[in-house]
Amino acid sequence: MLQIPGGRDEALSKQSISIMALIGVPIIEHGDDVADAILKALETSNIQPLDGDLVIIAHTIVSKSEGRVVHGDEVSVSGRARKIAEQNGFDPVQVELALRESKEVIRSEGALITETKIGLVCNFSGVDRSNAPEDSYILLPEDPDWSARNILRKLIDATSVKLGIVIADTQGRPWRKGSVNLAIGSAGINAFKHNRGKQDLYGRTLKRSTVCQVDELAASAEPLMGQADEGVPVVIIRGYEYEDGSESSRGIPRPKSEDLFR
Amino acid sequence: MLQIPGGRDEALSKQSISIMALIGVPIIEHGDDVADAILKALETSNIQPLDGDLVIIAHTIVSKSEGRVVHGDEVSVSGRARKIAEQNGFDPVQVELALRESKEVIRSEGALITETKIGLVCNFSGVDRSNAPEDSYILLPEDPDWSARNILRKLIDATSVKLGIVIADTQGRPWRKGSVNLAIGSAGINAFKHNRGKQDLYGRTLKRSTVCQVDELAASAEPLMGQADEGVPVVIIRGYEYEDGSESSRGIPRPKSEDLFR
Repeated sequence: MLQIPGGRDEALSKQSISIMALIGVPIIEHGDDVADAILKALETSNIQPLDGDLVIIAHTIVSKSEGRVVHGDEVSVSGRARKIAEQNGFDPVQVELALRESKEVIRSEGALITETKIGLVCNFSGVDRSNAPEDSYILLPEDPDWSARNILRKLIDATSVKLGIVIADTQGRPWRKGSVNLAIGSAGINAFKHNRGKQDLYGRTLKRSTVCQVDELAASAEPLMGQADEGVPVVIIRGYEYEDGSESSRGIPRPKSEDLFR
Repeated sequence: MLQIPGGRDEALSKQSISIMALIGVPIIEHGDDVADAILKALETSNIQPLDGDLVIIAHTIVSKSEGRVVHGDEVSVSGRARKIAEQNGFDPVQVELALRESKEVIRSEGALITETKIGLVCNFSGVDRSNAPEDSYILLPEDPDWSARNILRKLIDATSVKLGIVIADTQGRPWRKGSVNLAIGSAGINAFKHNRGKQDLYGRTLKRSTVCQVDELAASAEPLMGQADEGVPVVIIRGYEYEDGSESSRGIPRPKSEDLFR
């Protein structure tokens, strides 16, 4: 058994967080059960889940298990997609799928930035060839919060411990170079941490401070997941204290009307 | 001595990362040496720095040590600042300082979003009252990469181990609700991790994938720092493998001309 500090029962609680790669999750195919794969990997890794553990899952395995993988041959490319692809040197099939997954195209010159049907603003609607089977494309899960709740329910049924789930994707950002891992779905943990009413160092009440904790947790997991062939689609975070709540990851993207940065 | 897995000498290396709050860093005042404060806190916490440890530092203590704290009484508010403050119900002094710290105002209705002199796009140029002394305002460090290099040199001189530094601030983001901790300065670690040439799960070479690792590390540290009175301005990350390089945090903000999202 790994001796990892930061469990709730230890004195170190609140002073240390452990991030552990879950080794041994197999390549997931359409119809495979992600929760089952995680449970088996926990067992072979000899990691006993503890109350409060967070399970951070790369969206690719969720998409694959849900059949959100499309072979290029199945896709007929529209005129609009072909034009955007030609103008930018993009893969026409990837453009076509990105358009199908989008509800609005934000930019199509130099980059294809869209707003997806669930409101994520990202490159190519999150449609990606990396870690996809030959000539195939991985789409984002249709409803990642639903996927997270579904996996969570199975994990809790099997382990009887309180867990939280974050489904993560690595995406580019406006205004800052480089991608970071962020949350596209979650369950068992509130998406935000609200510091309303807390006091600062000098005893003044903070007016309001809202941290997107699931994005920070997704970012924390990326170093162990990696983007290439590391094959670590699941990471366990232990020792992070959080509350559950009704705010899901679906609520993270700002509606256009409220986005003061646009 | 804490038994933390993830050190370079352990079998667990690459499979586990530990994030530790550094307890016992005192309140920093103008002229105090941040490196000295960290060294003393490491000693009283009985944490022996190891090669590869990363030291994540809340910018507030760096700003305070560098005298980047302004008392409201010292600030004469311009007509422009007064107008923006009145239109939005903002604190006129905070607006004045934000304008002085900016090179461009991106938006001044509903929010004051500026580009700072070093190119960060953020609310109020990062000028903040939280955790500032009575009636005072904390500005961002003038050159956070310089601050990071300065602290790093002193820490390496004293400990003789290879370390990396990230100076962090919690900021809002375009398109996504809630703040996250991100890197405004760094030293001893390359700002980006480049996956160029690596292979994906199916053996295909990834065209190009650049992750902003210092932003992810800053995000990882926030849960232990907190935003309120936790008083944990320094967090140690152990077990994360990284390379140093010439890319500093100054290069993270996208120049306006390259920002495909704007």
